[in-house]
Amino acid sequence: MSVPAGSSALSKDVLLVMFISGPDEEWISRVKSKHPGLEVRWQKILQDGKRFLNPEDLGDEIWDGVTLICPFFWPPAPKYLSTVRFVQLASAGIDAWVNHEIYQDENVVFCTTNGAHAPQIAEWVIGSYLSHQHHFIRYNEQMRSGHWESPMASTVQDCTVARMGVLGYGAIGRQCARIAKSMGMDVYAYTRSERSTPEQRKDDSFCIQGTGDPDGVIPSKWFHGASKNDINNFLNQDLDILVLSLPLTQDTKGLLSREQFEILSKKKTFVSNIARGGIINTDDLIEALESGKIRGAALDVTDPEPLPSDHKLWKAPNLLITPHVSWQTQSLSTRILEILELNLDKLGAGEHLINVVNKEHNY
Amino acid sequence: MSVPAGSSALSKDVLLVMFISGPDEEWISRVKSKHPGLEVRWQKILQDGKRFLNPEDLGDEIWDGVTLICPFFWPPAPKYLSTVRFVQLASAGIDAWVNHEIYQDENVVFCTTNGAHAPQIAEWVIGSYLSHQHHFIRYNEQMRSGHWESPMASTVQDCTVARMGVLGYGAIGRQCARIAKSMGMDVYAYTRSERSTPEQRKDDSFCIQGTGDPDGVIPSKWFHGASKNDINNFLNQDLDILVLSLPLTQDTKGLLSREQFEILSKKKTFVSNIARGGIINTDDLIEALESGKIRGAALDVTDPEPLPSDHKLWKAPNLLITPHVSWQTQSLSTRILEILELNLDKLGAGEHLINVVNKEHNY
Repeated sequence: MSVPAGSSALSKDVLLVMFISGPDEEWISRVKSKHPGLEVRWQKILQDGKRFLNPEDLGDEIWDGVTLICPFFWPPAPKYLSTVRFVQLASAGIDAWVNHEIYQDENVVFCTTNGAHAPQIAEWVIGSYLSHQHHFIRYNEQMRSGHWESPMASTVQDCTVARMGVLGYGAIGRQCARIAKSMGMDVYAYTRSERSTPEQRKDDSFCIQGTGDPDGVIPSKWFHGASKNDINNFLNQDLDILVLSLPLTQDTKGLLSREQFEILSKKKTFVSNIARGGIINTDDLIEALESGKIRGAALDVTDPEPLPSDHKLWKAPNLLITPHVSWQTQSLSTRILEILELNLDKLGAGEHLINVVNKEHNY
Repeated sequence: MSVPAGSSALSKDVLLVMFISGPDEEWISRVKSKHPGLEVRWQKILQDGKRFLNPEDLGDEIWDGVTLICPFFWPPAPKYLSTVRFVQLASAGIDAWVNHEIYQDENVVFCTTNGAHAPQIAEWVIGSYLSHQHHFIRYNEQMRSGHWESPMASTVQDCTVARMGVLGYGAIGRQCARIAKSMGMDVYAYTRSERSTPEQRKDDSFCIQGTGDPDGVIPSKWFHGASKNDINNFLNQDLDILVLSLPLTQDTKGLLSREQFEILSKKKTFVSNIARGGIINTDDLIEALESGKIRGAALDVTDPEPLPSDHKLWKAPNLLITPHVSWQTQSLSTRILEILELNLDKLGAGEHLINVVNKEHNY
């Protein structure tokens, strides 16, 4: 999805890059040479490798006249962003911004780094699924006692006869689909809007060559809709693994609750959530795991988040929880800068940007 | 690879299928109708879901006149196989048979189920690698104390900038390569004989459609040779993961020893062994893991095997051991019967068989 950019040159713009690492001088010099007159400010926001600076910590002058911004994590207060016209997020989700004054200003274009997180998050999804299917956690426990036998090995079923359902067929879901297909899996896709033509099935968000499914040719079947019935019908498709890779919106909050886990119990579907914790009703998930309705789950996001240390979800069986880290990779900075640079080039040339947020649907 | 079959009809043959499960009547009736006169005997060799019957347990009459045999696991004594002309193994490796009298008889054709194990073993390789790269074992340990933080997440490097080296580019290695490529990995292949033309790079062993690399088009670079220098040169190619998917022979015993781990230390290559334990020198592997020369390893096979419960390998860091189970899947029986049926059809029609063992190289 893309929209026309508001300007054809950046000579009067001020770009503020808030970043996890210090200035990438080569990147800055290349961008400045392509966009004469553009002022580039770079603020490292991670201190001592662990503490993030708050916008308030930075002093007023760094915000002065900023028109283009790449705020690494959480939204700075509106007062800092009064002159901003373009926001390049470093995340794929937009939910932290939805109620922000600047987001609600139709003249401010928001772009995500949709696609930059797909390779590592898809690895997380596939890896945690295979880890469950092949009992790696149990083997690891057996290693402590030097135990060689394996009664559970005979229950392994490989992916050649399995089906993945991808709820939200965006950049991340598409890369999950690509890996799944390479293992012989069947893939079903679900999108909010109908995608019946080849053109509709395309996705023009950022995509590393040779990964993902930009043309939308991997799924053997497509589903769509915004109603509970539509969702329930999709969940009823004998899925071995359900990947939740859709945004958190009013429509998707608590999307997986008791009723849906009942449906998933038919195939004991494995549930993988790398989207937002609120998409799943936590109590109902615990019940589904404890009663064996589903074979297992992997959660990189929880509700509440962070999960308190005494929360009973930690103790649920056949579950892997990671602390919202699946997006991390040492290649991420390079990719975010690549997307920002691409969008600056398009902004300068007056072309359609990539990864533009649809403010109607909030993704 | 294939050789001409010795006969063009099976009307005087007796087939003995030794199998983990009871008779597949549909399969038997289909095979008998395609090959009139063929006598099919089916012996379930797994008792009570865990104990394997020995050939000696079966009584003499079941062996009488058997010409075609599918012995599920270990070789029956030569006296039982005196009239056999075709052996369909249920394994991909041949090492249990090399010194067997019947194997040494050039008139007896041996076929493996090469390819039948590729999907699940490749899942094991990829899953255990991702599990290591994404710290799943450590997260699982953190769950016990309800610990949400993750300092190690920032060290994750995804596959888009990684390289897999496949030592032995057969059916299993090719499926590893396919999944690796779908994750954005670069793949280097190593074979014993040179494969410089498209024709040489093909592999005609059994392959489930949509998996593997039957045409040999995935690797960006090919290596070959039988000398230590050839191997060492391959190990020196900045590999992030080395997959050992080659047969155990006199040439490959102890292939990975101290000298090779030194070479791998440059990139701290992850070592995945799903071939045979003897390919790695166990003491040298322990030293490489303890000293951090390699980032980790996953072993489905060990030397010795089974690994005694007091063996120090169990305690080596960054290691996953599973008890020679990576070949297991509930789909395996179906695939073995599919290969056996295919070879019976080819035998009956006088065509080249699939998965024929090269007795010169013992694979």
